[in-house]
Amino acid sequence: MDIASLRAAHPDHWKLATAIRALAMDAVQAANSGHPGMPMGMADVATVLYRNHLKFDASAPNWADRDRFILSAGHGSMLLYALLHLTGYAQATLAEVKTFRQWGSRMAGHPEYGHLEGVETTTGPLGQGISTAVGMAIAEKSMKARFGAKVVDHKIWVIAGDGCLMEGISQEAIGLAGKQELDNLIVLWDNNNITIDGRVTVSDITDQHARFAASGWDVLACDGHDPADIDRALTEAKKAKRPVLVDCKTIIGFGSPNKADSYSVHGAPLGDAEIAATRAVYGWEHGPFEIPAEIKAEWEAIGARGAAERAEWEARLAALSPAKAAEFERQMSRGVSKKLGAAIRAFKKANSEAAPKVATRKASEMVLAAVNPVVPETMGGSADLTGSNLTKTSDISDFMPDNRKGRYLRYGIREHGMAAAMNGLYLHGGVRPYGGTFFCFTDYARGAMRLSALMGVPAVYVMTHDSIGLGEDGPTHQPVEHLAICRATPNTWTFRPADVIETAEAWELALSAEKTPSVLALSRQNLPTLRTKHTATNMVAKGAYVLEEAAGKRQVILMATGSEVEIALKARDLLQAEAIGTRVVSMPCMELFAAQDEAYRRKILPPGAVRVAVEAAVRQPWDRWLLGERGSEKKAGFVGMEGFGASAPAERLYAEFGITPEAIVAKVKALL
Amino acid sequence: MDIASLRAAHPDHWKLATAIRALAMDAVQAANSGHPGMPMGMADVATVLYRNHLKFDASAPNWADRDRFILSAGHGSMLLYALLHLTGYAQATLAEVKTFRQWGSRMAGHPEYGHLEGVETTTGPLGQGISTAVGMAIAEKSMKARFGAKVVDHKIWVIAGDGCLMEGISQEAIGLAGKQELDNLIVLWDNNNITIDGRVTVSDITDQHARFAASGWDVLACDGHDPADIDRALTEAKKAKRPVLVDCKTIIGFGSPNKADSYSVHGAPLGDAEIAATRAVYGWEHGPFEIPAEIKAEWEAIGARGAAERAEWEARLAALSPAKAAEFERQMSRGVSKKLGAAIRAFKKANSEAAPKVATRKASEMVLAAVNPVVPETMGGSADLTGSNLTKTSDISDFMPDNRKGRYLRYGIREHGMAAAMNGLYLHGGVRPYGGTFFCFTDYARGAMRLSALMGVPAVYVMTHDSIGLGEDGPTHQPVEHLAICRATPNTWTFRPADVIETAEAWELALSAEKTPSVLALSRQNLPTLRTKHTATNMVAKGAYVLEEAAGKRQVILMATGSEVEIALKARDLLQAEAIGTRVVSMPCMELFAAQDEAYRRKILPPGAVRVAVEAAVRQPWDRWLLGERGSEKKAGFVGMEGFGASAPAERLYAEFGITPEAIVAKVKALL
Repeated sequence: MDIASLRAAHPDHWKLATAIRALAMDAVQAANSGHPGMPMGMADVATVLYRNHLKFDASAPNWADRDRFILSAGHGSMLLYALLHLTGYAQATLAEVKTFRQWGSRMAGHPEYGHLEGVETTTGPLGQGISTAVGMAIAEKSMKARFGAKVVDHKIWVIAGDGCLMEGISQEAIGLAGKQELDNLIVLWDNNNITIDGRVTVSDITDQHARFAASGWDVLACDGHDPADIDRALTEAKKAKRPVLVDCKTIIGFGSPNKADSYSVHGAPLGDAEIAATRAVYGWEHGPFEIPAEIKAEWEAIGARGAAERAEWEARLAALSPAKAAEFERQMSRGVSKKLGAAIRAFKKANSEAAPKVATRKASEMVLAAVNPVVPETMGGSADLTGSNLTKTSDISDFMPDNRKGRYLRYGIREHGMAAAMNGLYLHGGVRPYGGTFFCFTDYARGAMRLSALMGVPAVYVMTHDSIGLGEDGPTHQPVEHLAICRATPNTWTFRPADVIETAEAWELALSAEKTPSVLALSRQNLPTLRTKHTATNMVAKGAYVLEEAAGKRQVILMATGSEVEIALKARDLLQAEAIGTRVVSMPCMELFAAQDEAYRRKILPPGAVRVAVEAAVRQPWDRWLLGERGSEKKAGFVGMEGFGASAPAERLYAEFGITPEAIVAKVKALL
Repeated sequence: MDIASLRAAHPDHWKLATAIRALAMDAVQAANSGHPGMPMGMADVATVLYRNHLKFDASAPNWADRDRFILSAGHGSMLLYALLHLTGYAQATLAEVKTFRQWGSRMAGHPEYGHLEGVETTTGPLGQGISTAVGMAIAEKSMKARFGAKVVDHKIWVIAGDGCLMEGISQEAIGLAGKQELDNLIVLWDNNNITIDGRVTVSDITDQHARFAASGWDVLACDGHDPADIDRALTEAKKAKRPVLVDCKTIIGFGSPNKADSYSVHGAPLGDAEIAATRAVYGWEHGPFEIPAEIKAEWEAIGARGAAERAEWEARLAALSPAKAAEFERQMSRGVSKKLGAAIRAFKKANSEAAPKVATRKASEMVLAAVNPVVPETMGGSADLTGSNLTKTSDISDFMPDNRKGRYLRYGIREHGMAAAMNGLYLHGGVRPYGGTFFCFTDYARGAMRLSALMGVPAVYVMTHDSIGLGEDGPTHQPVEHLAICRATPNTWTFRPADVIETAEAWELALSAEKTPSVLALSRQNLPTLRTKHTATNMVAKGAYVLEEAAGKRQVILMATGSEVEIALKARDLLQAEAIGTRVVSMPCMELFAAQDEAYRRKILPPGAVRVAVEAAVRQPWDRWLLGERGSEKKAGFVGMEGFGASAPAERLYAEFGITPEAIVAKVKALL
């Protein structure tokens, strides 16, 4: 259908959709940067979605049972901002639209979670939205199973572009969603056949229908500019028994006489002349940012469409038992279970006495066995390394199509998809996700782990096999730079606990975090319990603390983390035997130590002593503690890794790479 | 077919395949770690491949026109090691097999490139092998187009498991290979339906036939234990006009009476009793590591099968013109073009005079325009950001099915697949790959970039939009921790050039590197030419150097990289105006600076002065230069980023985040 026919056939729809297009053109032009083509292309689909299908109430952006709408093609942010403004979200004023892409605006270049109500997740890095949505869909199924369909019954809608579908992470998301039969997930594919480098076919000839169907999805298609056809497809999609791909055939920059259907409309303003020409095509006779009152009123009616449904929902929520309703509210609002602290303290008391010699991955499993029964909103999982990561406790079962109460996710060999799904599980509300893989494969999950940090999603990454201590699997599996990577990433707590007690304390912090993801770097190899004297205080919360004080005059401070703390303690024994007073500082979390006041930091790392840090990883993050705060290179040394690891039994590797008590002693003596 | 029938029907094959299985069982048992199940399951396929199809000559592991064999399921390394030993590769002695997974062995836990001839690439991180193979297949096509099918005409064979196919990177590889119609690529899928967490169906229900077909592959299938059926499928695969997936239905741990077809045989030794029971099933009456002479002889005959073909090939190579043959040898042996140095010097001379004000991404394009014509083995590309990364020069055309002489790859929106393909392009020989994306999306490519470093593959990563300087796209697109990430990674040169001259010098080093990948972090925004006085010397090779000396007594040293060098110079002007003598050090490559001798480092960063580093990124890598080597926190400061960026015009971001000449001056004065 050409534009004239569309206008004639669907005049009401046309006005509504054109308001989106006009705002997108104007805001990008005013910002002198941005992506107008996608909003112009998908305005019809979005209009039909918001007008007829999406369950939402613009006056209650955080309504727990709302449908979630994810703009996976985040560069088309003006589509979302226009919808939020037009439907009447309080924060999405016209004044705010005019600040698009400017300092301090809620309307950033790409949608940023936490900046603007109605933005369900941060998108922009391609493929993240669709993968995060899978986690949201799982969370919905889980919450529904736990609280009932009367209070949890909604859909997750995604708009994804060709870029999202070409990224590898999308395959991980598609595979997981297909296996899990997530019939609450509907992906609207903006099939405009344009990427930045040209036609999609310049780099891909994939038949997306066949690809999605191969992984257990239903596939529908529609003319993405014909509202009746779109409505038919969306109506059908909601009835599916599996996840659905809706192929929306669109034209990027729809209506632009000189730029439509080309890359030139993707990522740059149209320019005043082309905007004027496009307005003429649209029959839109209003000035920049001008939305006629009656069109705004129609949009606001759409924004209020869900109010009655929300009221009914609130009545149903009120009909739950008070305890169940309170628990629902707590989980949706991400309150920390009051039972967590007591469970951790009891665990620490028992284990400081029992003093087991276990790998910290095993210690983590023991902690989870104490935590999972009293924190019902945890959902665990692993990227197909359950028996290695030790992430599944005996009290939780697999989340599966026939067992939605299950709290354990078989993510498959999909680290990136797992991390993105964890973001979605948390963002949906009602779930605290943790998930495991080998620490080295942080590399595969980085894209989504960074978004955890950027969004402030306190996901817990259970990263086992955290050093050369994993032994024979060799350098491809041995992290050396990954502690530095996690520590360099803003708003990330990198924990490397030294024993079962520190592991418990790290878990307590990770599960209490409000805005910060945690990485638990855990050993494969057994480690002794070092904290055999019980303290109720969470020492890991300090980031670093004196584990063993110097006997006699303090000449040396050894700092270490994780499996190297034991080695540092042995070095201390050797040094003390020669009457060299040596303090050992355990530093399980540099970020938390850096957050302490200077007095505390100075108490732990006073000036004057020789400092040696010990960690089976690269030195980069240690320079601050070795050289800064009154250290100096003359009196500071590092015992760790200078390059990649190797394949051999762990003990041999520690010896060959010189991470031994004897090597530490030699380093100290050279510095003294 | 059951084992008895197979033995009876194919006695010769059975003996050969059983030798592989026995060695795998014995070596894993002796190492007390490893993965026997996969070699036992794929021994029949591998035997047929080596016996009847693979073009190779065990006496010439580096024969340029050999078929490449990639064990993407790298945990099954004993399959490859057994094949190399049995067929007679000189380095793969039985004594070496007995060192499997021990310190110093050529036979590491996972196949490590450079340790053992016959290992074409490092595998282990799942999905890398199949994706690297795509690059090799492209290199073969490119070399064939440039040198002719008489000297380049071979196949790339891959064994991949369910794990490889579930990783997202595999979709990127499959999509790229399908688009490029790589009929020289044959993937043998070890379809054993087992992952670490159980049956594949616990996490995936994907119909792989449909999935591969959707992206333009041919799909064949065979009984992976029936040599006749395997041979039929492989024969057919070689005739295909598109890349081929061969579904080899196998049983993991084939023959093990108690462990076959289960996870228990995947990643642990079978144990002496089970090995004995399995030997009985096999009818293999020989002791551990014992291969009867006649079976070894049969295998060695297979290893020598290609000798005649190689001799014919050598005759064809000798029939080329001497110049063409020499160029072929140079490119295959990765010699650096003698014209590179002169081209860079001429470029530097011209541009130090012209002194253009251009973004370093633009400078990079200008360098490439000078380099590509004289270095014919470069192949460029971008993950769908060609116009932003500026990686395509006008003299090179797109590599496409109908244009195999093209030297530019449209990788699509596939950063991880691109990086892996770049590894393959180089490992094949004959190609020096460079490829671009936004620096922030290093996150997506990390898995393969780490393998570049681990393998010593000097790929060049052209990473543009390297800081908040990209402006409005916001924090999802603004790297802050990525310089730290690259610098923390062993064997990686991280270049952040400050102007067009440093960009040229960085490119010269990157393209001359023998064993080290390079990351070029390049600005989106324009930067002035700072090195307006021509020097033939490559100053970037020093890692850091004095760009502007202090006037008068040196009180301050400012260090900076990239776009912040200009800011540091402006701060120097302000300081010098107040008679505060200030040196400015440009530090385009910390790794190369660290590699200088102490005298040089001390000359550049002498003690005594206040030091301030300026970089629009996190501080972590700077502590070494701020605090170490005679610095101290009392006299050192950092002007940079403490957290994520934001969406706004670049100038505003620099002002808001306090990365300005004025902020530097204030920091200096506070320290003085």
